[in-house]
Amino acid sequence: MKKIPVIIDCDPGLDDALMLMLAFGSGRFDVKAITTSAGNQTQDKTLFNALRLISLMEVKVPVYRGCEKPLLRELLVSDHVHGESGLDGAVFPAPVSEAESILAVEGIANILRESEEKITIVPTGPLTNIAAFLLAFPNLKNKIERISLMGGGIFRGNMTPLAEFNIYADPEAAAIVYDSGIPITMCGLDVTHKAVVFQKDIETFRSIGNKTGLAAAGLLEFFSIFYRENRIELEGGAALHDPCAIAWLLNPDMFKSKPCYVAVETNGKLTSGATVVDYFTVLQKEPNVEVVYDIDREQYIEMLAAAIKNLP
Amino acid sequence: MKKIPVIIDCDPGLDDALMLMLAFGSGRFDVKAITTSAGNQTQDKTLFNALRLISLMEVKVPVYRGCEKPLLRELLVSDHVHGESGLDGAVFPAPVSEAESILAVEGIANILRESEEKITIVPTGPLTNIAAFLLAFPNLKNKIERISLMGGGIFRGNMTPLAEFNIYADPEAAAIVYDSGIPITMCGLDVTHKAVVFQKDIETFRSIGNKTGLAAAGLLEFFSIFYRENRIELEGGAALHDPCAIAWLLNPDMFKSKPCYVAVETNGKLTSGATVVDYFTVLQKEPNVEVVYDIDREQYIEMLAAAIKNLP
Amino acid sequence: MKKIPVIIDCDPGLDDALMLMLAFGSGRFDVKAITTSAGNQTQDKTLFNALRLISLMEVKVPVYRGCEKPLLRELLVSDHVHGESGLDGAVFPAPVSEAESILAVEGIANILRESEEKITIVPTGPLTNIAAFLLAFPNLKNKIERISLMGGGIFRGNMTPLAEFNIYADPEAAAIVYDSGIPITMCGLDVTHKAVVFQKDIETFRSIGNKTGLAAAGLLEFFSIFYRENRIELEGGAALHDPCAIAWLLNPDMFKSKPCYVAVETNGKLTSGATVVDYFTVLQKEPNVEVVYDIDREQYIEMLAAAIKNLP
Amino acid sequence: MKKIPVIIDCDPGLDDALMLMLAFGSGRFDVKAITTSAGNQTQDKTLFNALRLISLMEVKVPVYRGCEKPLLRELLVSDHVHGESGLDGAVFPAPVSEAESILAVEGIANILRESEEKITIVPTGPLTNIAAFLLAFPNLKNKIERISLMGGGIFRGNMTPLAEFNIYADPEAAAIVYDSGIPITMCGLDVTHKAVVFQKDIETFRSIGNKTGLAAAGLLEFFSIFYRENRIELEGGAALHDPCAIAWLLNPDMFKSKPCYVAVETNGKLTSGATVVDYFTVLQKEPNVEVVYDIDREQYIEMLAAAIKNLP
Ligand SMILES: [Ca+2]
Ligand SMILES: [Ca+2]
Ligand SMILES: [Ca+2]
Ligand SMILES: [Ca+2]
Repeated sequence: MKKIPVIIDCDPGLDDALMLMLAFGSGRFDVKAITTSAGNQTQDKTLFNALRLISLMEVKVPVYRGCEKPLLRELLVSDHVHGESGLDGAVFPAPVSEAESILAVEGIANILRESEEKITIVPTGPLTNIAAFLLAFPNLKNKIERISLMGGGIFRGNMTPLAEFNIYADPEAAAIVYDSGIPITMCGLDVTHKAVVFQKDIETFRSIGNKTGLAAAGLLEFFSIFYRENRIELEGGAALHDPCAIAWLLNPDMFKSKPCYVAVETNGKLTSGATVVDYFTVLQKEPNVEVVYDIDREQYIEMLAAAIKNLP
Repeated sequence: MKKIPVIIDCDPGLDDALMLMLAFGSGRFDVKAITTSAGNQTQDKTLFNALRLISLMEVKVPVYRGCEKPLLRELLVSDHVHGESGLDGAVFPAPVSEAESILAVEGIANILRESEEKITIVPTGPLTNIAAFLLAFPNLKNKIERISLMGGGIFRGNMTPLAEFNIYADPEAAAIVYDSGIPITMCGLDVTHKAVVFQKDIETFRSIGNKTGLAAAGLLEFFSIFYRENRIELEGGAALHDPCAIAWLLNPDMFKSKPCYVAVETNGKLTSGATVVDYFTVLQKEPNVEVVYDIDREQYIEMLAAAIKNLP
Repeated sequence: MKKIPVIIDCDPGLDDALMLMLAFGSGRFDVKAITTSAGNQTQDKTLFNALRLISLMEVKVPVYRGCEKPLLRELLVSDHVHGESGLDGAVFPAPVSEAESILAVEGIANILRESEEKITIVPTGPLTNIAAFLLAFPNLKNKIERISLMGGGIFRGNMTPLAEFNIYADPEAAAIVYDSGIPITMCGLDVTHKAVVFQKDIETFRSIGNKTGLAAAGLLEFFSIFYRENRIELEGGAALHDPCAIAWLLNPDMFKSKPCYVAVETNGKLTSGATVVDYFTVLQKEPNVEVVYDIDREQYIEMLAAAIKNLP
Repeated sequence: MKKIPVIIDCDPGLDDALMLMLAFGSGRFDVKAITTSAGNQTQDKTLFNALRLISLMEVKVPVYRGCEKPLLRELLVSDHVHGESGLDGAVFPAPVSEAESILAVEGIANILRESEEKITIVPTGPLTNIAAFLLAFPNLKNKIERISLMGGGIFRGNMTPLAEFNIYADPEAAAIVYDSGIPITMCGLDVTHKAVVFQKDIETFRSIGNKTGLAAAGLLEFFSIFYRENRIELEGGAALHDPCAIAWLLNPDMFKSKPCYVAVETNGKLTSGATVVDYFTVLQKEPNVEVVYDIDREQYIEMLAAAIKNLP
């Protein structure tokens, strides 16, 4: 089966780590590059974490340093969830490679320009790099097959009642991406709060016995602390957000979704960073986003376990 | 049983008409005054409609003219739903009384000042009058028992994806009311889109055979046109919003609700007028609103029919 | 000569104190009431200060307590300029009268309703009371002859580069007043930064020798501290803002002014509370404000000294 | 004398045309590239106009197509001033060269990367291209010597009372540039409304007799129509904005300026696009912009005439 060519833009980040394990372990992607966003942690740390993760997984892929801060706002990190390093909870080998000498936006431009086929972009952090790319290289937009992202929500937020972290951190970037006309799949909190891992799932990953499985289990143990304290409605589970954006590409049938018109609020006093999803078609505008809102959780956990098993 | 003392602030409006029928027909309220808001139609028309409605129902109650326009914004009417008159669909007798000579804010102040018991306020239009009252007479706030209102929504809007008409029309007024510290019951679109009347219900009202029942049926026939064309997910039903605010006072057990922190967005480009309901307690603030989200529809229809039966 | 009937709405406040001395000492006003705004200090303190000032001047006038906070925002006081009491720098006799039992908005309404002639309103603090009055009693707007206010600026601010304190503290109230259609005279920072008192002027007031002159000198000594430290372009002078609004009513020929369209920014991130004055007629809208921008300073000082001389 | 290396980012535009005549005719600049912004007219037209202008002046310089629209907003053109073509009023030769195959942002990046010395950027249209460049290539920021731009104003606007066209058209881009830390010279409306050309100056240019002089005269005749109708305080003159940004580089002593802290309002309802200049140091922040506010007009006209004389 032909591999799906992708560029992954992430801010590892605990759930980003699991997302990368799924992307590489599934064997189904031709990962052209990893670009790192500032979000869960600073650019220095997410870049370092990306390099540590590919070292752990023993894969080769160019890694590009992304933007240091949101397009127009100050940087906001999520260290209360992801820890001081951004990857707290597991021990990693030192990186065995270095970041590319050019930055993410130029890296994406070069890859798209040289590619004969269209490439899918998978952002699982704030959308700063992708927006900056679209502003600087509008002529290469048609080389993007789709953007499958983790971010936003229809009926819930996690930073405020209506805003999810990735969108909240850089709403202007999100607005540029959502308005771009590129086909978008949005895995927001509606689906990711159903894409939950419980302690038994963590044990499943650990029992695989390889170093990736041990790291996955350690990261998820740390990740669960926040959720058990703050989101008790998940009953001990942790919302494993980012791998959804990859899982949807592997098997969209595992999900439920609906095409909707979605726009991003950049101005509100209480609603900045809200993805305004016209779920009930009040505005009567053309849908621009495939909004994912449900998942077969059991299949998701199996998919993750299978991918981890394929890695060292 | 002691009657509940209330001041009703409304913008009739088709569903406001049904709300008044329920308020008077139930026999359970001591209605101190009706004050009219500009909303579904202009102040001139909603005031005239209130006078026509009490003429139809043959009740005596002081009616006060309210504000002509929102606190800070231009007037927005909803004639595409409620028609040119604001009460399209039925024939009414001419008013037999006139509005009071003083305006709504002063009228409310006089009533509260003179009352020995606390009074409940029931707004079913934009909150302009109530906000202007609170600004001008903060010393009388403690005479208000509760505000039971129709407006807003947790997970849906009708003017935009996140904003309901009454709040959208005057968000600053709504912000003042929601921030006032007065106990609030909010019947938003979550519940009112379950408080639906179907054609068979309309026939039930008509078959009561009195003039109020005939008027109710005519108004609801007209009201249903908009819903059948625009909100097909209601399967032919029309969302009968305003009577919920009265019905909850009559029997809160007929409803499901949850205490939540709620604030009103006054600034957003896409979200102005959204009631930001912290349903999942992201902000960890003290609840200020009893948010109603479900209803026993059959009981609601029976309650309405019983009230109409009690009227001429 | 017939006295000018006025209601004075102020937040004393050092320069408000001088404004009241000018109003009462000039002998030219029929002061129907003083209403106090929260601004330079809290409502408790500005009300107390108003009562102390009329006690000092030995005048009788009803004083009404105004709103506790801006219409929609949190209270912001200016204690870094006016001191802990709001009237630092002089010793005052205790009040010999009490505030009226009703609040400012109702007090203004009663006075206007009962008056056969139109009354001028002179606000020299945030415009909260006046806006709340206009919202609650729109039917009495036509009893207002003019609003002569201190606030705003064409080309300068003092809280931010574009916003002056009185407008910045409650921009929504200011927007309501400026949009009201009532004739407005605006004495903003352009004129008041030319209405400067120097040390020699303070000595002039002190040398009058009466208790009002001594108080005026003490207050201005304290007032000058802030200006000498922070606004060195005034060369030791202090901008004596509030009396301008009264002085213009006494003698408009002492000033230069231009009719302009003016609106108030309520939303900006950097410009909230700016009075947007269309001085160069870019918008081609009808002027709604007489914008005062220059003064004969010598005459102003003489006018103040003459007024102080008339008081005890 | 060593030539000053510059990249010129413009939206010709009548006054942009005069700016290019000054840049090339002065003989003092090493123009590395012209990049075109959408502003006075669409990108298609400003690009075409840049190519026509270098054809007229018989100079060789790479021209790059810039962004089609502002970073986050819809395109707003200024055809009521600059005409249907953006260069109404004169006849031009057809272009003899084509735009480069890569876009402006990448072109700027390549030039800066390859340059051993720092380069000055001269924007005289909306700042979209420069902002997009800074977002995509932050690593090359240190290759920029200075940004000398036409835009904004201290005390006046032309689109609204506080906003000038170039900033108003793309406030977010302007905010990014002003916040960049790069030394900025801002020639805003305060100076450019003193940099006026009168009919006698137009005759001076025409009488030079070469084709550039004839074109300059024709363009300025057309340009003057708007000013004579709309800005009568200029007494028949037209504000020749854009050449100021070049003239300041040639001879800053011809101007008066002051270092100030400047930020751009991106949110206001009435003030969007205002350059908030802290001229009176209210905010006590470090100056980030050299704000130019006066000019020796006679010298300016002579400088322009001398440059035109040097061209074909
Ligand atoms: Ca992430
Ligand atoms: Ca209603
Ligand atoms: Ca004052
Ligand atoms: Ca230009």
